[in-house]
Amino acid sequence: MRIKIINPNTTQSFTDALQKLADTVSRPDTEIFAVNPASGPASIESFYDEALSVPGVLEEIIKGDREENIDAYVLACFGDPGLYAARELTDKPVLGIAEAAFHMAVMSGAYFTIVTTAPRVRFMTEHLVNRYGFSEQCKNIRTTPMKVLDLATSPETAIAKVIAECLLAIKEDHAEAIVLGCAGMSQYREYIEQQIGIPVIDGTVAAVKLCEAMVDMKLGTSKVLTFSWPRPEMAPQGRQLNIA
Amino acid sequence: MRIKIINPNTTQSFTDALQKLADTVSRPDTEIFAVNPASGPASIESFYDEALSVPGVLEEIIKGDREENIDAYVLACFGDPGLYAARELTDKPVLGIAEAAFHMAVMSGAYFTIVTTAPRVRFMTEHLVNRYGFSEQCKNIRTTPMKVLDLATSPETAIAKVIAECLLAIKEDHAEAIVLGCAGMSQYREYIEQQIGIPVIDGTVAAVKLCEAMVDMKLGTSKVLTFSWPRPEMAPQGRQLNIA
Amino acid sequence: MRIKIINPNTTQSFTDALQKLADTVSRPDTEIFAVNPASGPASIESFYDEALSVPGVLEEIIKGDREENIDAYVLACFGDPGLYAARELTDKPVLGIAEAAFHMAVMSGAYFTIVTTAPRVRFMTEHLVNRYGFSEQCKNIRTTPMKVLDLATSPETAIAKVIAECLLAIKEDHAEAIVLGCAGMSQYREYIEQQIGIPVIDGTVAAVKLCEAMVDMKLGTSKVLTFSWPRPEMAPQGRQLNIA
Amino acid sequence: MRIKIINPNTTQSFTDALQKLADTVSRPDTEIFAVNPASGPASIESFYDEALSVPGVLEEIIKGDREENIDAYVLACFGDPGLYAARELTDKPVLGIAEAAFHMAVMSGAYFTIVTTAPRVRFMTEHLVNRYGFSEQCKNIRTTPMKVLDLATSPETAIAKVIAECLLAIKEDHAEAIVLGCAGMSQYREYIEQQIGIPVIDGTVAAVKLCEAMVDMKLGTSKVLTFSWPRPEMAPQGRQLNIA
Amino acid sequence: MRIKIINPNTTQSFTDALQKLADTVSRPDTEIFAVNPASGPASIESFYDEALSVPGVLEEIIKGDREENIDAYVLACFGDPGLYAARELTDKPVLGIAEAAFHMAVMSGAYFTIVTTAPRVRFMTEHLVNRYGFSEQCKNIRTTPMKVLDLATSPETAIAKVIAECLLAIKEDHAEAIVLGCAGMSQYREYIEQQIGIPVIDGTVAAVKLCEAMVDMKLGTSKVLTFSWPRPEMAPQGRQLNIA
Amino acid sequence: MRIKIINPNTTQSFTDALQKLADTVSRPDTEIFAVNPASGPASIESFYDEALSVPGVLEEIIKGDREENIDAYVLACFGDPGLYAARELTDKPVLGIAEAAFHMAVMSGAYFTIVTTAPRVRFMTEHLVNRYGFSEQCKNIRTTPMKVLDLATSPETAIAKVIAECLLAIKEDHAEAIVLGCAGMSQYREYIEQQIGIPVIDGTVAAVKLCEAMVDMKLGTSKVLTFSWPRPEMAPQGRQLNIA
Repeated sequence: MRIKIINPNTTQSFTDALQKLADTVSRPDTEIFAVNPASGPASIESFYDEALSVPGVLEEIIKGDREENIDAYVLACFGDPGLYAARELTDKPVLGIAEAAFHMAVMSGAYFTIVTTAPRVRFMTEHLVNRYGFSEQCKNIRTTPMKVLDLATSPETAIAKVIAECLLAIKEDHAEAIVLGCAGMSQYREYIEQQIGIPVIDGTVAAVKLCEAMVDMKLGTSKVLTFSWPRPEMAPQGRQLNIA
Repeated sequence: MRIKIINPNTTQSFTDALQKLADTVSRPDTEIFAVNPASGPASIESFYDEALSVPGVLEEIIKGDREENIDAYVLACFGDPGLYAARELTDKPVLGIAEAAFHMAVMSGAYFTIVTTAPRVRFMTEHLVNRYGFSEQCKNIRTTPMKVLDLATSPETAIAKVIAECLLAIKEDHAEAIVLGCAGMSQYREYIEQQIGIPVIDGTVAAVKLCEAMVDMKLGTSKVLTFSWPRPEMAPQGRQLNIA
Repeated sequence: MRIKIINPNTTQSFTDALQKLADTVSRPDTEIFAVNPASGPASIESFYDEALSVPGVLEEIIKGDREENIDAYVLACFGDPGLYAARELTDKPVLGIAEAAFHMAVMSGAYFTIVTTAPRVRFMTEHLVNRYGFSEQCKNIRTTPMKVLDLATSPETAIAKVIAECLLAIKEDHAEAIVLGCAGMSQYREYIEQQIGIPVIDGTVAAVKLCEAMVDMKLGTSKVLTFSWPRPEMAPQGRQLNIA
Repeated sequence: MRIKIINPNTTQSFTDALQKLADTVSRPDTEIFAVNPASGPASIESFYDEALSVPGVLEEIIKGDREENIDAYVLACFGDPGLYAARELTDKPVLGIAEAAFHMAVMSGAYFTIVTTAPRVRFMTEHLVNRYGFSEQCKNIRTTPMKVLDLATSPETAIAKVIAECLLAIKEDHAEAIVLGCAGMSQYREYIEQQIGIPVIDGTVAAVKLCEAMVDMKLGTSKVLTFSWPRPEMAPQGRQLNIA
Repeated sequence: MRIKIINPNTTQSFTDALQKLADTVSRPDTEIFAVNPASGPASIESFYDEALSVPGVLEEIIKGDREENIDAYVLACFGDPGLYAARELTDKPVLGIAEAAFHMAVMSGAYFTIVTTAPRVRFMTEHLVNRYGFSEQCKNIRTTPMKVLDLATSPETAIAKVIAECLLAIKEDHAEAIVLGCAGMSQYREYIEQQIGIPVIDGTVAAVKLCEAMVDMKLGTSKVLTFSWPRPEMAPQGRQLNIA
Repeated sequence: MRIKIINPNTTQSFTDALQKLADTVSRPDTEIFAVNPASGPASIESFYDEALSVPGVLEEIIKGDREENIDAYVLACFGDPGLYAARELTDKPVLGIAEAAFHMAVMSGAYFTIVTTAPRVRFMTEHLVNRYGFSEQCKNIRTTPMKVLDLATSPETAIAKVIAECLLAIKEDHAEAIVLGCAGMSQYREYIEQQIGIPVIDGTVAAVKLCEAMVDMKLGTSKVLTFSWPRPEMAPQGRQLNIA
């Protein structure tokens, strides 16, 4: 199967890291295509960045559906930007990485904590937790004073801060799993897990595996109402429903 | 004071209707500027439409803040598209019309029902109700089989459907106020209210009046964290805080 | 328009302060009438005080409606005592100051904290937050060891305690706006705001401005069911509904 | 032990019915004193009625505590008027009949429905359900077009309406117990239960039995903070805490 | 009346302590039968222990109903193991001690905190709080590093830890009542209450008193649907309903 | 990998059907072992049935972990009986089929409805929905008057009833996906989906695919606290944590 990972920002090195990461966890018969829009914000750290990135994300969905024979999509930014709009544009599965990480976390431990970047994303993150129904299982959202790009420029310092928050999460929040709240942390997941001794969930990995599961189940996006095609003429002939 | 109403779609006749409506309720010392982006969707009836409209909305905020000496902004589409991104771009008040209508409705009656257009917007509308904290006071979201543009092409039929749902809301939902769930219904508010006998709230009117109140109170958007400027260099000198 | 502010306690100096404060924020065409009942508790610091104050408050509503040609009412005690009973007695808007402050706070910042007087009011305050739907946006209720009357007798000490709690609210609760949880703090609002650097909302000011907005909108109390006249004969002829 | 039932309205025949009812369920060593204030509303069917009844209720608490050697109090009106204020005035147990009925209902069946009088009390009743934490177990609040006093003037017609709603509650709400939402229905409890075949809870009976249980347990009102004496001088010497 | 207390673990000394405790609070006309299954876990400190204890508990219900003429049942383990299954097997009242304690706590104080044993039971306890509807009134679940059996082997040390947590609950959680989260703490209830000065609720005592109240009210388990007999042939003839 | 499906009831034909179903959706490198306990209830239609089935389920977990080299477990009964106890007994993933189905449903459509067997399971099902955090996305629980075993004895009639409820779910609940609320319906999933035109989720299939995903991710049950080994000696040497 063919899974397209859309990095909503324009930083090619992040896209490459996502491709590499996904290749290590995907099944032998899965092809991963990590892409990013040609223009837009270099990283997504505000609602404004998110808003500007969405049109580029949606173009990648349309292209994937019409030209690239894609079976499932992953939106690789922790704010799940444009998730519902993307679902309108295809009958294939579309998963955000925040959503995917939360689902996986609660299947592993009783409670989880999100460890993420700068404090301003707390409100955005809390929205996602509430919207998806995880407000009782998510015990805390811990932020650090770093920016997304710090993960690229000084990863050691950044990851040390993340690990410190993870250890506080275990002690103070009674967290039993950690969700990494930024796609830029993905490549350090295994290292962090080794340091703290409880499961650490990366959303991109989670989303790829959930996409594989959904494609195997022939389960796509329900087109009956909320996510039906935005214009009738956008619906591919004979593909209104997601039933094989 | 100067209030800018941003119609996120490109239908000029809607923009004109908003200008006219707002002029009738604003105070003598308030100037209303209703605008719409030059390009984008003609009406907003899906998450996809909403996503495409947001960059144009945000440009209007930036322009209003830098060039037009605007005191407050109204986003005149019931999905409140781009509300949080817009708040990052200014220290002035920014109100969505859904948000404004809900606040006004609960100050009038114990319960309210939203009457809106096509069924596919139910999920989007429910998100707003929950996010803003009105899930107990909002008793129902009633949809009709019409599209937003039906309000322009066959208003009589469309409004008759709206009135029928309002009467059911009183009888079945115990609604004590009605919120109109679409900016296109604004001009019929008074007529609907006369027909059904309970308060009918239009979000554009509500938002204009709340903007006037906030400007009088010198209350703007708090810039301390969530809605701080997306890039430090975007912050106008000496205007970080919204305190006069 | 004519707005009546009802101070539910019998301390005339508080009533005078409310008149003065409201005069500074009301529009030129608004007349403010601040009153208090002739008998009752000197300050309201318990459910018992509140219960004893309500009959006097309701008499002021009846008098305002029948004899004083009032357009809107403000209940100037943070417990919003008698709010729903007052709404039954008139088809004009009636706003409590807690309610008004919460509505304004969430239009300014993502989260707010309430800073109030003695610890025993926490439960009462939490009830209001939950009842009005602000439990996710209100991050904390901070109390101080002072009594309401301390604000009059040793204001400097009292306000210093309030400011200390506000600063903790920013740091620990991630508050982006502060709601003052006592009408006695109103006159220090501007000073506190200058000291802490984020918006500080006073409920009396908020309620006056919201009343002005509602009167302009011809939006009163919905009389269709919950707040209909307690006895049919109390309904003024031809005024059952709040539609102009 | 001595339990005082306070009927907040002034209708002596209701008070007598409460006395009679409580006498049939109380233990041999329990003395019941049913009283009502000398002046106030004849029945309580609005927030206004409730507000006017509360000062009289509170006087009965003070008198009971100082002069009558009462061990526990029941507030016999389904709105639990003045409950929290009453708790401030004594260290004995004080139970509202709505509260008591809800606690008993969920110990009997998985879900319950409230059947009450006129539609305008729905909002008041819903507040109580939410405040006490029963929003998931209470499946519906069913109202009838009758007034409280109809129960006295034409009981047969009134009770037939109540039974019809109870049967709908079983069928449509999946109710497994019924809570009678008005003290005036108390005397018909047994008859209704026989007609519908599932447990029917009367709040006055429930409250009397819960008072007996609390007194046996030496469990009174916690005076540590929220319900501490409203004025220090009101606290009886040596009785600050509710521990024997 | 005859109340059967079922200690789900096999530690006879705990059963004896429960018998002794219940005898001191039950009414003269109440007979208490404390029992425990012959085989099963010695104490219940995990979901696994709980699962293994339930079949033995249910046998005691069946035996009590068929052979022992029991009027009401108490499940004396704070996890309320098998509560709903037990209710299916009888039309008599069946109360769990967690459930009983919560009901009693909120009739005494505005907020309560649970103080219990080892940290691993937090999740189990939180489930009960949420399921029964007490999530707003229960301010905290405080655990200690002890095991249930520590209460028997070194009670002084164990109780000192409990008291320390109770005092923190008053100070940090604003708790106004304490619920003891383990049947093993029952015999120290009075001592703890004397040390901390606010009501301390033991679930076994609470459940016995609630059973007495329910039996007096002729209120049993509603058999109409959820708790109807698991097999039709299990229903005793003429006893389908819990109405005397 | 080796996935063990535990059918908690003793009906071998159901176990065989589960094996067959899982074989059709599992990956080529996955081995499925469907088993059932030797003794226990023939079907699970009450809390009592569930309680009796759990010890047998847990024995299968222990055996799987010690003797069968199992990689992940599926509990194939819609009540997820013994789920948390099972998680204590292994560091491998353990998924209930209700849980798995809900997670998959919300990744496909905005809202889902559960269609299940006899009305008495509504309460049990609602518990699961609330506990797992899906109360806003699950719009209804629809029951039919059939028993689980009807699915085996008269499948055509039974499935026709299920389809009728599914169609009502689309029309009245606005459901966009259906969750089958009974493992006995699994084999009819595809047929039902074809008849109703929206995704139909079977929990056993969902759980198998989620197990595959978790095993690939080396994500098991977090052993740090809630689900740590019930007795220290049960922990396999060197396998305390679920990190490879």
